[in-house]
Amino acid sequence: MKNSSRREFLEKSTATLVAGTGMTILASSEATANSNVDAQISFVHHVFFWLKDPKNKQDYDQLLAGLRGLGKIKEIKMAYIGSPSINEFDKPVTDASYSFSVLLIFANKVDEEKYLVNPLHKKFIEDHKNLWSKVVVYDSSTI
Amino acid sequence: MKNSSRREFLEKSTATLVAGTGMTILASSEATANSNVDAQISFVHHVFFWLKDPKNKQDYDQLLAGLRGLGKIKEIKMAYIGSPSINEFDKPVTDASYSFSVLLIFANKVDEEKYLVNPLHKKFIEDHKNLWSKVVVYDSSTI
Repeated sequence: MKNSSRREFLEKSTATLVAGTGMTILASSEATANSNVDAQISFVHHVFFWLKDPKNKQDYDQLLAGLRGLGKIKEIKMAYIGSPSINEFDKPVTDASYSFSVLLIFANKVDEEKYLVNPLHKKFIEDHKNLWSKVVVYDSSTI
Repeated sequence: MKNSSRREFLEKSTATLVAGTGMTILASSEATANSNVDAQISFVHHVFFWLKDPKNKQDYDQLLAGLRGLGKIKEIKMAYIGSPSINEFDKPVTDASYSFSVLLIFANKVDEEKYLVNPLHKKFIEDHKNLWSKVVVYDSSTI
């Protein structure tokens, strides 16, 4: 299935959360027909935060509240905050030492950069940077 | 907005790609009304692969094809393969040394574990593990 018809297929069969942006699908063309695989992710900004004092509930709640506040920024298409999880199969290669996984989906890199310099994002960093010991960012664009 | 009404809001206003599963939203309740923020992510399995020989196009293509083949596995709700990207703002804390970012969304941990032990996934590892020097897995469940 070519890109154009794949897109058409997706537009017909699913809602497009990220309307008009590039889409990618992990699956081969046969699997595109599997409606479980509806990938509308074009640019991924995944940030991991390690709290200085991970057992301090006040610090945890404060950073979580700050992270939730970022969702107001309009360029964000999809957002998710997660806690570490470990599966037995991947245990030897899993990093579950972080406090928060923050996954943000953007339409493209330009939108991500608008988000990053938004005053709300900058204020979030100023107000909360004393709480974390480490931050790691993984950015990627669809292949 | 309580969880139940937030879910109701989302069900009314957006399609649910991950129907019937937990949803999370980064945003505060005010931002929930921002239709740009439609997060339907419940369990995230994010895997980074480092090729042994990152400049070898044959190895790159072979691993990419193998990764795409995994999309056939039915438990996958959303899937994405990305290439590293660097933004100026986060550059000091960005890891862009990997070859592939593979982001898979599952309805829950049980579905992820079914995926992991699927013979197709196990065969993918056997057939491609000679190509990578490092794999790091970050699993998380919605807060």
